[in-house]
Amino acid sequence: MNSDLDDLSKALRDFATERDWEQFHNPKNLAMALAGEAGELVAEFQWLTPAEAADLSPEAHARVAAEMADVLSYLVRLADVLDIDLVSAASDKIAANATRYPVATARGNADKARDTDTQ
Amino acid sequence: MNSDLDDLSKALRDFATERDWEQFHNPKNLAMALAGEAGELVAEFQWLTPAEAADLSPEAHARVAAEMADVLSYLVRLADVLDIDLVSAASDKIAANATRYPVATARGNADKARDTDTQ
Amino acid sequence: MNSDLDDLSKALRDFATERDWEQFHNPKNLAMALAGEAGELVAEFQWLTPAEAADLSPEAHARVAAEMADVLSYLVRLADVLDIDLVSAASDKIAANATRYPVATARGNADKARDTDTQ
Amino acid sequence: MNSDLDDLSKALRDFATERDWEQFHNPKNLAMALAGEAGELVAEFQWLTPAEAADLSPEAHARVAAEMADVLSYLVRLADVLDIDLVSAASDKIAANATRYPVATARGNADKARDTDTQ
Repeated sequence: MNSDLDDLSKALRDFATERDWEQFHNPKNLAMALAGEAGELVAEFQWLTPAEAADLSPEAHARVAAEMADVLSYLVRLADVLDIDLVSAASDKIAANATRYPVATARGNADKARDTDTQ
Repeated sequence: MNSDLDDLSKALRDFATERDWEQFHNPKNLAMALAGEAGELVAEFQWLTPAEAADLSPEAHARVAAEMADVLSYLVRLADVLDIDLVSAASDKIAANATRYPVATARGNADKARDTDTQ
Repeated sequence: MNSDLDDLSKALRDFATERDWEQFHNPKNLAMALAGEAGELVAEFQWLTPAEAADLSPEAHARVAAEMADVLSYLVRLADVLDIDLVSAASDKIAANATRYPVATARGNADKARDTDTQ
Repeated sequence: MNSDLDDLSKALRDFATERDWEQFHNPKNLAMALAGEAGELVAEFQWLTPAEAADLSPEAHARVAAEMADVLSYLVRLADVLDIDLVSAASDKIAANATRYPVATARGNADKARDTDTQ
């Protein structure tokens, strides 16, 4: 059974191995690299109104896509190093959140939306 | 053509739609939510030595997996809202980095490793 | 010559020393801790409209103040460990930015505003 | 009563006012800008060992100081916009943490160190 993320994970591992960069790719460092990329992503939106952020120029859209690619790459590398199945972890989270935030009480409620993350 | 990430994207979109949370899921807000989760992820490792970070307790491993699931979920939601193909963007990035960091000169070089992200 | 930040720096150093926590307070760890707190701060605002963010409830205002206190505390600890004069560094930055963004061309320009940070 | 931070706050406010940038400096945007700078700061340390991070080259030290200046500047601007006394908030936090983490039980304990931030 194969998937896009498995292919990406292998490509990133090979990239690191060929350059002898696996020595830098311990979980602590990779979590930092991911946080750094998340900072670059959020910076793309920092001075935009919500409306502007939803209507990016082609150049800004391309920059955002590249930053998201960086976040994904470090996330996939970290999952590889820690032997975590990302899609399975995300599915588990959705199931848990479906129980925690029943449709009836959560509809349109930002306070509920705020709490869907892991506390 | 289907993939794990497409399935996850649809599940997350449905989850938001059912709860009328799409009003909160504009790109600016989603980028912030992703940055918040990246902060929670990095916090899991902040007081650990690199060696400890590579040998997590089962409890810490589960917390890290849950934080990574949160990061992935907001990343996938943001890609959905912005109509970005994450795996394609990551593949483009790997190709660009392969040109930028030839194996011959990049081997074992942290300065090169540092620069693989988008500047 | 004394200042509020010097007093805070000393209080935080004493706090760490008394608990034998200076062993955890190396620059790498402190930078991570600061990033984690910045993530908590940004999370406070993630689902708010800009107007809502400018008109916080007393409870949200208190939470934001506490997160900002955490960011400041790790910033001051990091400055102490690295022997950096924060106020002097910030003043240098303002002077550099004043040259880089002359009032005449920068007025009301978000693209300029975006670039005032360190590249 | 005056302080270094008050002076810095005024200088940053004047800088923004002169350039008509106060329109961008709502709390949501400033929190994002701070998170972006925290990401740049953590990126400086991401591939360094803890020992390397504690012994920066003069160039890296200067880059780190500049990133810390950026974090402080956005923190001070956010405090100004939200009318928060940063030093007072930090002092309150230290007092609360002193109660929460008595010296006797917290000594050398990373689990305690981990929890000093606002939950």
